[in-house]
Amino acid sequence: MQKKVFILLIALLAVGSTLAQQALKERPAVISPELTPQGNVVFRIFAPNARSVNVIGDFAATPLTMTCDQRGVWSAELAAPAPELYIYRFDVDGVTTADPANVYTVRDIATTYSMLLVPGKESNNYAIHDVPHGSVTRLWYPSPKLGMQQRRLSVYTPPGYNDPANAAKRYPVLYLLHGMGGDEEAWLTLGRAAQILDNLIARGEAQPMIVVMPNGNAALSSAPGQSPAGMTVPTTALPHTMDGTFEKSFTDIIDYIDQTFRTDPTPKSRAIAGLSMGGFHTLNISALNPDLFHYIGLFSAAISPRENNTDPLFANREDLLRTLFSRSPSLYWIGIGSDDFLYEDNKTYRELLDKNAFPYTYVETSGGHTWQNWRKYLSQFASLIFKR
Amino acid sequence: MQKKVFILLIALLAVGSTLAQQALKERPAVISPELTPQGNVVFRIFAPNARSVNVIGDFAATPLTMTCDQRGVWSAELAAPAPELYIYRFDVDGVTTADPANVYTVRDIATTYSMLLVPGKESNNYAIHDVPHGSVTRLWYPSPKLGMQQRRLSVYTPPGYNDPANAAKRYPVLYLLHGMGGDEEAWLTLGRAAQILDNLIARGEAQPMIVVMPNGNAALSSAPGQSPAGMTVPTTALPHTMDGTFEKSFTDIIDYIDQTFRTDPTPKSRAIAGLSMGGFHTLNISALNPDLFHYIGLFSAAISPRENNTDPLFANREDLLRTLFSRSPSLYWIGIGSDDFLYEDNKTYRELLDKNAFPYTYVETSGGHTWQNWRKYLSQFASLIFKR
Repeated sequence: MQKKVFILLIALLAVGSTLAQQALKERPAVISPELTPQGNVVFRIFAPNARSVNVIGDFAATPLTMTCDQRGVWSAELAAPAPELYIYRFDVDGVTTADPANVYTVRDIATTYSMLLVPGKESNNYAIHDVPHGSVTRLWYPSPKLGMQQRRLSVYTPPGYNDPANAAKRYPVLYLLHGMGGDEEAWLTLGRAAQILDNLIARGEAQPMIVVMPNGNAALSSAPGQSPAGMTVPTTALPHTMDGTFEKSFTDIIDYIDQTFRTDPTPKSRAIAGLSMGGFHTLNISALNPDLFHYIGLFSAAISPRENNTDPLFANREDLLRTLFSRSPSLYWIGIGSDDFLYEDNKTYRELLDKNAFPYTYVETSGGHTWQNWRKYLSQFASLIFKR
Repeated sequence: MQKKVFILLIALLAVGSTLAQQALKERPAVISPELTPQGNVVFRIFAPNARSVNVIGDFAATPLTMTCDQRGVWSAELAAPAPELYIYRFDVDGVTTADPANVYTVRDIATTYSMLLVPGKESNNYAIHDVPHGSVTRLWYPSPKLGMQQRRLSVYTPPGYNDPANAAKRYPVLYLLHGMGGDEEAWLTLGRAAQILDNLIARGEAQPMIVVMPNGNAALSSAPGQSPAGMTVPTTALPHTMDGTFEKSFTDIIDYIDQTFRTDPTPKSRAIAGLSMGGFHTLNISALNPDLFHYIGLFSAAISPRENNTDPLFANREDLLRTLFSRSPSLYWIGIGSDDFLYEDNKTYRELLDKNAFPYTYVETSGGHTWQNWRKYLSQFASLIFKR
């Protein structure tokens, strides 16, 4: 018993001593994240009373354990991560929080993450460089086909679009669709679409183009917080996400864009691409409108409908594709990661295309169903379109 | 000694018991903030290991103490706050964090806060209603006078601006300036400018107008994270904030806006207003350009220059104002809170105006140097302009 009490006493003194220290601690200035000259990244958080702090980020499969210094500042050093745009949070004794020292946050569905851009060749397109910048507009279009007077969408217009010298110039349009849980913000925030286009156009690797990023959730008018519903909790539990509803309303968007912007409204100057659910929408919209798009991109695309298999859009898919490919689209591009949970579905879909000798371009990357891949796919796809 | 050991033992058992409980705790679903039917607000955070959690928000002068339930969820109920847009953070054992359950965040200089909109008559203009929405564009203008090829600004165009029926219609323009530490985002995020204008226009209380929100930091091209400097820590320690530099470059912005948008480029259709540093800029820009603006608004304006008193813009202020008021501007509007640290400076400035019999409208509110006041001032000012 005496030995037990002694052990307890030592343990308690340690706790007491820690508490006494904490009372004296000043809040130190914390820099986080910090890129070291060696290319490492140091994360820091002042948490003088915490027992355990980790960094959870998409740079590593497992949390990074932080250690505490005498000031109460926890830190962890990530060894030379690959150049990429990462997102992360801290776990402080079970409380997950964005990095309090980092104002650069991004929402992914219902969670706010801190952002970290590790510079280098592979992430160069995601950084902001001293090149001419395009404009980004959030505006509202009417969708009679969805019975909505106003739906929100984002539009990138390329550098020079507003120059008086280009007043008569018309531009090709890429329609760029998000995945489940995304909205008209996703490609601009997590997808870095404006930066990718600015950089590709500046280097002459992409044609100056308009990029239209609509909201693909047919039941909603807009991103969370942008509708009269107010500041509700974002959810992926929505009706009519993958049943053909959005696809059948899509020409409302094209009509509005062609009316509002200086587009070249011919199929050879119109492209469509999307990720995951947006890849599914792209597949169906292009099949449903064989005369509208000359460039089509499926990024980690979902292939099967969710709620409805008997709609002619899905039941007659092979027939619709036959019509589409009879128009000889310039590019039918499929990209997917080898670890993607949709890999097998995409393989089956490619077998359908192969069986019919429908020509397509296939790019298989490493990795899974991630924004890291979708940013790469956009960079590649945007550099291929409007050139033939 | 035996008594002491006993007390220590009891204390330690309590700690041990708490730890054992924590290991068993599941992460519960947390809703925060929640508006109750009684008009109270409940804040919640899962922090099973925390010893002390507070809510720090601009709804109260002191932190709100939270209490913990058996699941490890801390909560606090705020009794019937006035209808307003509030910002808040949690302090969990010294770690300050935005509310992990609330995706609606806003940056104020270098801190990310959670947002809370308490609905009611007074905050009605800040909410999104089912009314026609204007568009918001972020674009880049050249500023030869600042020696910069690209500077970022935000532009609100009113509902109907893109309608073909209005293709020949020209609109009045309000130039709306931010304060120290702000940028071209501030009036849109903390200021709710797009919502305020949408709602005022829908009710016929404001004329449809273009609102231009530039970056008033002459040393910068754009908001944090929008320049090649990358994701740096925002700072107010900038050169040339209040020395006349921005003011002297301002016609670069007007030139670009009049060239790019369908403006009515006459003084009777041009207004300028700003808060704090932006009020100072407004005072100087209107004095420097007596023939450009018919409507001028100083919101909690700074009055004195920071870095330079001898520039003719400041040394000859009374002469410049004499010229400005000789043009009989339709509105010279001054608003300030009775607790504002700039109250006395504004009083001295009003005495200067009074001495010269320069007519102005004066609105004194309660409160201090806050966005709560600036949103009110914008709502009032926007409903007065372009009507005479």
